[in-house]
Amino acid sequence: MSFALESRLSGTLGRAGVLTTPHGVIHTPAFVAVGTKATVKALTPDQIAATGSEVVLGNTYHLYLEPGEKIVGEAGGLGKFMGWSGPTMTDSGGFQVFSLGTAFGKKANKFIGHRVSGAVEGQRTPLAHIDDNGVTFRSYKDGSVHRFTPERSIEIQHVIGADIIFAFDECTSPEASEEYQKEAMDRTHRWAKRSLAQHKKLGGEQVLFGVVQGGRHEDLRKESARTIAAMDFDGFGIGGSFDKADMGTAVRWVSEILPEEKPRHLLGIGDPLDLFEAVENGCDLFDCVAPMREARTGALYTKHGRINIENARYKIDFSAIEDECDCYTCKNGFTKAYLAHLFRSEEILASTLATIHNLRFIVKLVDGMRQGILDSTFEKYKDKFLSAYKK
Amino acid sequence: MSFALESRLSGTLGRAGVLTTPHGVIHTPAFVAVGTKATVKALTPDQIAATGSEVVLGNTYHLYLEPGEKIVGEAGGLGKFMGWSGPTMTDSGGFQVFSLGTAFGKKANKFIGHRVSGAVEGQRTPLAHIDDNGVTFRSYKDGSVHRFTPERSIEIQHVIGADIIFAFDECTSPEASEEYQKEAMDRTHRWAKRSLAQHKKLGGEQVLFGVVQGGRHEDLRKESARTIAAMDFDGFGIGGSFDKADMGTAVRWVSEILPEEKPRHLLGIGDPLDLFEAVENGCDLFDCVAPMREARTGALYTKHGRINIENARYKIDFSAIEDECDCYTCKNGFTKAYLAHLFRSEEILASTLATIHNLRFIVKLVDGMRQGILDSTFEKYKDKFLSAYKK
Repeated sequence: MSFALESRLSGTLGRAGVLTTPHGVIHTPAFVAVGTKATVKALTPDQIAATGSEVVLGNTYHLYLEPGEKIVGEAGGLGKFMGWSGPTMTDSGGFQVFSLGTAFGKKANKFIGHRVSGAVEGQRTPLAHIDDNGVTFRSYKDGSVHRFTPERSIEIQHVIGADIIFAFDECTSPEASEEYQKEAMDRTHRWAKRSLAQHKKLGGEQVLFGVVQGGRHEDLRKESARTIAAMDFDGFGIGGSFDKADMGTAVRWVSEILPEEKPRHLLGIGDPLDLFEAVENGCDLFDCVAPMREARTGALYTKHGRINIENARYKIDFSAIEDECDCYTCKNGFTKAYLAHLFRSEEILASTLATIHNLRFIVKLVDGMRQGILDSTFEKYKDKFLSAYKK
Repeated sequence: MSFALESRLSGTLGRAGVLTTPHGVIHTPAFVAVGTKATVKALTPDQIAATGSEVVLGNTYHLYLEPGEKIVGEAGGLGKFMGWSGPTMTDSGGFQVFSLGTAFGKKANKFIGHRVSGAVEGQRTPLAHIDDNGVTFRSYKDGSVHRFTPERSIEIQHVIGADIIFAFDECTSPEASEEYQKEAMDRTHRWAKRSLAQHKKLGGEQVLFGVVQGGRHEDLRKESARTIAAMDFDGFGIGGSFDKADMGTAVRWVSEILPEEKPRHLLGIGDPLDLFEAVENGCDLFDCVAPMREARTGALYTKHGRINIENARYKIDFSAIEDECDCYTCKNGFTKAYLAHLFRSEEILASTLATIHNLRFIVKLVDGMRQGILDSTFEKYKDKFLSAYKK
């Protein structure tokens, strides 16, 4: 893998680059399509590519449980298994191990949420138990008991075989005490070292990103960035948790410390406003299920904000979701009235057409930021977008 | 619309032709993809076209209830509404009006089933009531009461605007007495006349097919064929009901009477073995939800018969559904193991990839029959298929 910086966004930490993997290039900043169980839900690989997506991220936790990493490996790895010829990534499984067993509601897409250790009272009975060596957790599918350690996570990710993989980390609740955040961060650092050792031991072409944690605390974030930056990782993940309002600041603390020549992936971010902040603060990659998950509920992205296609007014609206959108859905005569009908009739095609649109919207939005960095029109592009977009 | 016969299958009633509609040609014999609610479930129009399907049939009953014919009409008609630029058809709504409220189980795809009037004991409380003027029925969605008459069916089909539409008919149970079959057939004939009158009154470019009924009784089938053939229809539908074993014979009785120069559509047939019989007995068009519905349950068509992809053995089968298949699913590296995973994980993409395969299988099978008629290799083609295919 190689990463070449092409341009910088003056007065900020923002940059545009090209990340070259064995399966093709990723033009950064880039939104990463999430293909949790080796499928970007409701899309064929052709349809993923047609949205302009250059890279797909699978979730190690889900693939480990279904169909099991061995089957993905025997198929020739994640890309081959799902028929995606471009670059692939897997996360470490850490986020899901902690989050899927614990209190986790409407804010699941928002990069916040309560994690099992250090989390506040009132959460559900945790399905995961953490110790210094790893995490014992229950499957969200059948309650069966499993255990991940840094070594096991890396081993699974090697079998799954994505181009870019991540060190096993602990992602804490933003409500956790600073004391707990420090404890979890120190553990993440020890796990980073073990992840790296296991990765080197197993060899191969995959590259490993270390994950910076530290919550919303400046001293912890900076300490984590320095510690992880000092290790021999090929790139970096920046993990939650912080409140949404703290995100830009926390990312900046980290980006100022991380080496410029290596790519940075902000984990779990996909909201349009957050993406601008993340790009300005030096992030190159972002993944988030929100655009796809919201699409399947009928929440469609437009330059004026989200619309709920099941709103009665759309039943007789014979215009495209967005006239200027170049996605398959908008360019082929599918109207809001048709989408409203498909959603009301619970037709499968509703999810497909909506996902194509939302994913294209976000991919194009980030591509626009990239172009803005390259030709110094970022501020103008951002102002234009933000003036129209209603949160 | 014009229909040109190209070739005949010697010693049988089979023929190959070209049906020209305002939205393109249909090479017959042809399998018609069913797009019940203005969507072939789980497929985009591009994906439908890629299966080789040349025509899509919408169901008047469903479209009347959801989203209502007015919305389809305001959108510019069925094809425009669903983004399908090729030829379209609608059925009359008769079949669903009778079937959806009555006992109707596993055999729903098999062109048999119990209809509300003349049906056997033990059926569910009927949700439809028939009289000589039309049918009063309850919506399968919300129980609301509706009424179809021949005039209303034609009116709705004119608003929906498909290229080919059907006269309103009564489709009886194969278990109904001959006396009842006769009564229902006579009513269907009166309704055919009224459908035709309403169609001519409304005018326009659409063409109307009359429907032949008469159950499994030779005298009734022949009387119905003579009566419907004598009316000024542009083509003909051959409606159920008969037992599966009677189908070929009943179709032959009818085809020997219907005028050769007009197309014949056998309603609701899609089983591979039935399709051979139907083609040999002079049918040009066939529609059936079975290939698509079965795909969504994981029943995949192969030259050796159906396979259930959720069978444990396929979890580690890294071969295509069929090596020789030219569908998107088989040609792009999607293995049985991947499909098994998608079905077990209840992923939307499972339905899409399986539907593409099954629809392509059936379309290609019928295309092969057409080619066999054109180059006099039909018998060889049929023998080869049947010797490998296990029911």
